[in-house]
Amino acid sequence: MHHETVTIALPKWTENFLSTQDKTFLDIEQRMSLALELAKLNIEHKTGGPFAAAIFEQQTGKLISVGVNLVTSTNCSIAHAEIVAIAIAQKKLETFDLYADNTPRQLVTTTEPCAMCLGAIPWSGIRSVVCGAKDEDARQIGFDEGAKPKDWIDQLKNRNIEVTRNIKRQQAIEILRSYVNHGGKIYNPKKNG
Amino acid sequence: MHHETVTIALPKWTENFLSTQDKTFLDIEQRMSLALELAKLNIEHKTGGPFAAAIFEQQTGKLISVGVNLVTSTNCSIAHAEIVAIAIAQKKLETFDLYADNTPRQLVTTTEPCAMCLGAIPWSGIRSVVCGAKDEDARQIGFDEGAKPKDWIDQLKNRNIEVTRNIKRQQAIEILRSYVNHGGKIYNPKKNG
Repeated sequence: MHHETVTIALPKWTENFLSTQDKTFLDIEQRMSLALELAKLNIEHKTGGPFAAAIFEQQTGKLISVGVNLVTSTNCSIAHAEIVAIAIAQKKLETFDLYADNTPRQLVTTTEPCAMCLGAIPWSGIRSVVCGAKDEDARQIGFDEGAKPKDWIDQLKNRNIEVTRNIKRQQAIEILRSYVNHGGKIYNPKKNG
Repeated sequence: MHHETVTIALPKWTENFLSTQDKTFLDIEQRMSLALELAKLNIEHKTGGPFAAAIFEQQTGKLISVGVNLVTSTNCSIAHAEIVAIAIAQKKLETFDLYADNTPRQLVTTTEPCAMCLGAIPWSGIRSVVCGAKDEDARQIGFDEGAKPKDWIDQLKNRNIEVTRNIKRQQAIEILRSYVNHGGKIYNPKKNG
């Protein structure tokens, strides 16, 4: 076994798209619109599942990083949109704690986080989470969100992490549906041989 | 914002260490011993927290990948040992589903998974999890394991993922303690400004 590395790269189209966008997004609806557009483009470019996320400075709205689901295109089950956005933000800010400088940062995600991404949020230093589609919306369409504590929102609040839900929920649901309706793969691993 | 990438690389010492080891580990005690040795070396080399993991073919014991906690050394809160081992195994096998070929693979981890890594396991295709120190051992020493469903073991079993606990638990606890006793940083992000 040689010296091992894993690289997760945002698709080239994200660079082109972001070059046409504002650098600052004042309200959470604008921030969610950016994430929803990324999710749509991720479907169109066939670079992964219908999920996107972005991280902003909470007060100024400055965009720090974006993430899209890259599970199928990178052969990495860890590469959910939220994980990608967190890892890129931490690399840019050169810290594993996005609150190390006491600047609150906000994760905007097109669907409420799955069990893995939910678990990742407290470790990241994110202070606020804004969600589009609800957990049950995703499950109803066929996505697996995993086993989360029933009181996950209170659990985050107890760690001083705010949660804001149902921002552009209907648009977020439509994106999930459009992925499935166009034959998008729901890419869970096999449970049985 | 330019074309963004994040790379997680195993430290160079892992390559040297693994070159001296067997390639196949027949029983779970041998597999755990390898993981415990990696956790010890991760402390000695100051490349991260006192946690390590390894993935094996469950039947043959063939080593597929290893992971160590790289949070502090790579500025990435996602880089827990289990996540690193899963991502490297998927890269090597060129699939996001470690059960895609119907070969069951086993994740051996020196401490029961935190909430994030627990959430990652069902998405990975891992069929079996072997743990050293218990969740409460880690918490008692000061590590934060996050909010996990109380019935997390049953939740994994319901997905046909076996869990085996308490393998070399005392040795695993001693490694956690030795990290803290030698001034190792418990690197959770700040909760308040």
